[in-house]
Amino acid sequence: MANYFDDNDDLQYYFDKGIDWGPLVRATERDLAGGEAGAASLAETVDGYRQMAQMVGTFVAQDVAPAGLVVDREGIHLDKGEAVVPKRMQAIFDQIKALDLHWLCVPRELGGMNSPLLLYFINTELFARADVSITAHHSFHGGIALAMLIFSIREGSTEFDGATITKTRFQDAIEEVARGDAWGTMCITEPDAGSDMAALRTVGEQDEHGNWFVTGQKIFITSGHGKYHFVIARTEPATGHGADDPLAGLGGLSFFLVPAWHEDEHGRRHRTVTIDRIEEKLGHHGSCTTALTFDRSPAFLLGQRGEGFKYMLTLMNNARLGVGFESLGVCEAAYRMARDYAAQRPSMGKTIDRHEMVADMLDEMRTDIQAIRALAMYGGYHEELATKYELFASRIGGKGELETKQLERRAKQHKANARRVTPLLKYLAAEKAVEMARRNMQIHGGNGYMQEYGAEKLLRDALVMPVYEGTSQIQSLMAMKDALGAIMKAPQEFVKRLAQARWRSLSARDPLERRVAKLQHLALDAQQFLVRKTATDKFRSLSDKPLSQWRHAFLEDWNPKRDFAYAMLHAERLTRMLTDVAVCEILLEQSRKHPERADVLRRYLVRAEPRCRHLLDEIQTTGAELLAKLQDDRPAANAAE
Amino acid sequence: MANYFDDNDDLQYYFDKGIDWGPLVRATERDLAGGEAGAASLAETVDGYRQMAQMVGTFVAQDVAPAGLVVDREGIHLDKGEAVVPKRMQAIFDQIKALDLHWLCVPRELGGMNSPLLLYFINTELFARADVSITAHHSFHGGIALAMLIFSIREGSTEFDGATITKTRFQDAIEEVARGDAWGTMCITEPDAGSDMAALRTVGEQDEHGNWFVTGQKIFITSGHGKYHFVIARTEPATGHGADDPLAGLGGLSFFLVPAWHEDEHGRRHRTVTIDRIEEKLGHHGSCTTALTFDRSPAFLLGQRGEGFKYMLTLMNNARLGVGFESLGVCEAAYRMARDYAAQRPSMGKTIDRHEMVADMLDEMRTDIQAIRALAMYGGYHEELATKYELFASRIGGKGELETKQLERRAKQHKANARRVTPLLKYLAAEKAVEMARRNMQIHGGNGYMQEYGAEKLLRDALVMPVYEGTSQIQSLMAMKDALGAIMKAPQEFVKRLAQARWRSLSARDPLERRVAKLQHLALDAQQFLVRKTATDKFRSLSDKPLSQWRHAFLEDWNPKRDFAYAMLHAERLTRMLTDVAVCEILLEQSRKHPERADVLRRYLVRAEPRCRHLLDEIQTTGAELLAKLQDDRPAANAAE
Repeated sequence: MANYFDDNDDLQYYFDKGIDWGPLVRATERDLAGGEAGAASLAETVDGYRQMAQMVGTFVAQDVAPAGLVVDREGIHLDKGEAVVPKRMQAIFDQIKALDLHWLCVPRELGGMNSPLLLYFINTELFARADVSITAHHSFHGGIALAMLIFSIREGSTEFDGATITKTRFQDAIEEVARGDAWGTMCITEPDAGSDMAALRTVGEQDEHGNWFVTGQKIFITSGHGKYHFVIARTEPATGHGADDPLAGLGGLSFFLVPAWHEDEHGRRHRTVTIDRIEEKLGHHGSCTTALTFDRSPAFLLGQRGEGFKYMLTLMNNARLGVGFESLGVCEAAYRMARDYAAQRPSMGKTIDRHEMVADMLDEMRTDIQAIRALAMYGGYHEELATKYELFASRIGGKGELETKQLERRAKQHKANARRVTPLLKYLAAEKAVEMARRNMQIHGGNGYMQEYGAEKLLRDALVMPVYEGTSQIQSLMAMKDALGAIMKAPQEFVKRLAQARWRSLSARDPLERRVAKLQHLALDAQQFLVRKTATDKFRSLSDKPLSQWRHAFLEDWNPKRDFAYAMLHAERLTRMLTDVAVCEILLEQSRKHPERADVLRRYLVRAEPRCRHLLDEIQTTGAELLAKLQDDRPAANAAE
Repeated sequence: MANYFDDNDDLQYYFDKGIDWGPLVRATERDLAGGEAGAASLAETVDGYRQMAQMVGTFVAQDVAPAGLVVDREGIHLDKGEAVVPKRMQAIFDQIKALDLHWLCVPRELGGMNSPLLLYFINTELFARADVSITAHHSFHGGIALAMLIFSIREGSTEFDGATITKTRFQDAIEEVARGDAWGTMCITEPDAGSDMAALRTVGEQDEHGNWFVTGQKIFITSGHGKYHFVIARTEPATGHGADDPLAGLGGLSFFLVPAWHEDEHGRRHRTVTIDRIEEKLGHHGSCTTALTFDRSPAFLLGQRGEGFKYMLTLMNNARLGVGFESLGVCEAAYRMARDYAAQRPSMGKTIDRHEMVADMLDEMRTDIQAIRALAMYGGYHEELATKYELFASRIGGKGELETKQLERRAKQHKANARRVTPLLKYLAAEKAVEMARRNMQIHGGNGYMQEYGAEKLLRDALVMPVYEGTSQIQSLMAMKDALGAIMKAPQEFVKRLAQARWRSLSARDPLERRVAKLQHLALDAQQFLVRKTATDKFRSLSDKPLSQWRHAFLEDWNPKRDFAYAMLHAERLTRMLTDVAVCEILLEQSRKHPERADVLRRYLVRAEPRCRHLLDEIQTTGAELLAKLQDDRPAANAAE
């Protein structure tokens, strides 16, 4: 019987060894004391998770995968203001409801199964291997229920007895969603504001009774036919937008929960949010992408006015991790389809998987999937612990000051780990989903271009990955700014890291450790080069200023948009290097504990080494002429703006 | 008024300066004496070509481009055994007919315009920028008419008076096609034989009266709803297929022209070739891709029995060049759509074409297009002269022996030039069409994923390019075998080239020449490495043979499939290097004559240099482990076969 969990050795590794379940289970069980007696019950708990993953593995392979092809053909359309979904899609969600899957991570005291979010993410991969658009819609159930709870805890509207929740702000809505009777959405993008959030125009207004209303248009809203909308809207005027401050305008944003309708006593639906249209997309046809109008729609403010951007980031971090796991599922589907086809397609006297070029492609796909999964597990694990420790530290009472401080420190460390890899994961997984889906088509030859084989559907579905939840370019900018910003803040620390990498690359006993250190060194070289270049350009820009202003301008007056041109040009290349380094570090750590993982690291390194040498070369030798041209053109372009 | 010819500076360069029209016009006019008085009439003739390209430039921009979107939506379907095409598609072909475009390259004495094939290829680019699937169908008119003529001249069934054609074998069919009343196809692929032509199963049989009949199934036949089919079929049994000889089985193939139907006296169509189905494809919806059954279909043998593979190659070389020009049109469309969108889409206070990463992408797209066009013009030019000189030498009488020898020598030189770049062009142009179409989508952000913007259609259309007329991998194998084969045949010659490249890279006065020489050196290094590796592997394989056999095995008994494993693994990487070198050599030659071209070369070099360093690095450092694994697995795999 097909089972997408059982047939996956790499996933088995994480369940059996790769995930350090102890801290995650204790945090999920809110058992922060972490008693000694826990070992047996830990094994039992993890076994419960495993059974859940196995059940999902069977369900998605047997029911979701075949439905995906049908749903892709039929798609979703608008009829009298409401979305009409394919019957087959409805049947899948009826099954999900029957399996209680939306309850997975909801705390026990609210009626849920109290599983860690990481299990939910693992299920996301399994789902996405079957059909990624059905997965996307699925994630707007449990994911949104959890978000409601987390936001409520964060703003202080959830009550605890010890570590037990006794009351939470959106309890009814959480239950409604977890039952599968409703789902939610995240409404950010507007017609003229994609990545540029400071350009958002939707407004939140308060009447004299203190009631909030939201007015504006949102586009590209996934699962926008749902009931509960998290909406980001402007409540204070934007300041200084467009000029030199990239954060201008973000401060005036607030975060709202907006129900799309209410039901009257006869059960009739009265919409306060209108679906303007359902987008016709290249793929992802099980996911309902909508344009919405909010016209003084009654809304609930989350947290404080002006905290919108902060709240959104929480949702977005998890969404980006989610896209990482989704993309991983697409990669698995593409790789396995390609591998199976190549193993049975004969050409020139042997099956094509024996042809060197195809074997090379398949080997890289397999290795990259293991790399992406390593990043995804790492990111998911640390993000979850960070969030949980943070909430415990700030919202669960009855702790001593020392304990709180400890929790905060642990949260901060986990947060830093998660923050580092999240854009790298989103970047790599999404790009690889497209690359692997295309390779799968190419390995299928002419058959890959024909609808009946299903290879082209995978590519159509994959192509949204590098766009939604922040494009690959936005991920790159974030990763680059974090990396270079850290150097500017603590240059001594950087010099130390560089020296250590050099030392380890020469002297470490383990040859794999030496190779990883060499890779780290390449990435640090690239960062050093970009920082130097940036400093030189900055220095040059000072030449027309009085000497008295130099010190201030050079040390304090940094503007990422003006001063980082060179680094921005190479952001994607640097990000690719940072990704390779992060993957290798995680795999090295794994192979220290589990020697069988050295094979994965070795396969990854052999391709990452020439790649990183190349990227450093490109960063050091290209782009100068183009930037000079961009600078020269500037006045004319400004005049046209 | 939109005009895809006039708005393209790079195309203007080729018309005005880049193409050496003299030899081409004289060969096309069959004026081989090349009189002195020709200068004025040469300018006049080229001006005629220019006017034709201008006319096509307007037509495709105004009529074909908007029709493309409609045709994409409607597609082609089968009804009662015949293909039904969208009305809009029919209207386009009625216009083409009215413009007499199918007559473009047909010789004057057969009623045509007697233009060079290169003009037809330039038109192909213009067409493809508007819609590449309509272009594909269009090429199965004039292209097939020309093929009929060329094959007839080659087999000796065309009669000449001096250089004037007085009679040709398929005259009626040529006129029918050129009038636009019919079109033809090329039927090669079968369900179990794509690139592996030795596996073809369709047979040609002769009855006792000498009539030929073809029986078998063909798939993926573009424009297979046409009347005239060039069919490759087996007439002699395959020998030794599947073992070690890659050419086994190709000798028994013959080439046929098979009409799909005849009309009775009442004008009723009686089909002798059946359309089994029309494929449902990802894109390319204006092109009718069919599966066909030949069931003792009456056929005409071309040339001699067993020459099928040779005849097919002629058609295929031109088809590959054609895909190069088609892909170039797709690249232009993608680049211009991306550029225009980026120029008006604001984000973070400026239009996104001012963002460094987008500017970098656009700059590379623009440069790559100029590179592809340089290869395409070079390939088209030399292939046409080669074919024409070859036919003149062998088939047009009234020449002295010396003149014939001269023609043969020139044909051979042009053929070598064309042969070298054709797989490189097909490879680069097709891969770049996909890359640029995807980049265009990415630059469009979320809008790129929506059908209404048309970006996704370009990618859907582009994805067939690296598959049809020989996959990118097949092109790579061809290019690699040609390159390495030449070294094995004449190692001294290779050593000389290596030394020259090194010398020029150090001593040439022009810095651009030095850089190109350095690039050549990198590519030669890669070839040297692969040849050495191959020789070493071969040497190792001899160790279990008696010493007496070594000399023979090492010097004579080469088998590309068995001995070239390392080179085959890296064929695509080597091909990418060979492509960069070919592009730079052509651009260097251009910039010597026209200094303004140095800018194109410079822009190309800055990206090609780190890329070639990287590819050499990859060739030298990766693949060994994978190959060892493939070798180890071999016995088991053989057992399963």
